[in-house]
Amino acid sequence: MTDFPESHRDLLDAQFATLATLGRDGIPQLTEVWFLHENGELKLSLNTSRMKTKNLRRRPECSLFVLDVENPYRYIDVRGRARLEPDDDYQFARRVGAKYGGADLRDHDAPSDSRVIVTIEPTNVFAVNMGG
Amino acid sequence: MTDFPESHRDLLDAQFATLATLGRDGIPQLTEVWFLHENGELKLSLNTSRMKTKNLRRRPECSLFVLDVENPYRYIDVRGRARLEPDDDYQFARRVGAKYGGADLRDHDAPSDSRVIVTIEPTNVFAVNMGG
Repeated sequence: MTDFPESHRDLLDAQFATLATLGRDGIPQLTEVWFLHENGELKLSLNTSRMKTKNLRRRPECSLFVLDVENPYRYIDVRGRARLEPDDDYQFARRVGAKYGGADLRDHDAPSDSRVIVTIEPTNVFAVNMGG
Repeated sequence: MTDFPESHRDLLDAQFATLATLGRDGIPQLTEVWFLHENGELKLSLNTSRMKTKNLRRRPECSLFVLDVENPYRYIDVRGRARLEPDDDYQFARRVGAKYGGADLRDHDAPSDSRVIVTIEPTNVFAVNMGG
């Protein structure tokens, strides 16, 4: 159950997703994030100074949740582990920015910050449609 | 930081929230839920047969996230632990149903099912407004 079902494929190109990471106390921490569906994978560009990135370095267990904002009874939750890779030259960040009207992700970063590519490696894909 | 900030109070009366629980494998599991803001607390009515309820019984660490669907750059994440209490007579379930146009939560349950009142006991309230 790690494939994205056809019925929810549109959500993979939505504008926003909710990322769940685990804090030091083991409590889930949710934040709203930009993301990119690329080569069949769900990926994020995260600033290494952010708490969610530190959480993922400590504990890769995570979940990326995409809600159909037109119908909140329909959503997909991609559960698994995060793989982190450096994006020192912001190549990947630029591809994310392209999805968001050419946004420059550096605008959100301090000069000394760096970014990582976060790829969700699913162990379970949970797709729901309860009508509505 | 366990108070609900005035700037995000409206979200406590939103229609939907995202509940994060932890699976047996320690991976966060997110589902969209109805909820009720009552006496200054955030509460859910959950069917005991559901995975999320089993998760909370095993590990109470959880998070309830409410997104401003009009502006996804604004949200509140209530992080903490869940307190579970029986709701065998569906008294609390009825109060939740009243928020949702008088919905009868029994319609979602099998005759042998039971419900619990889930109250989020916050250890941290994370309120974000990045404009948008």
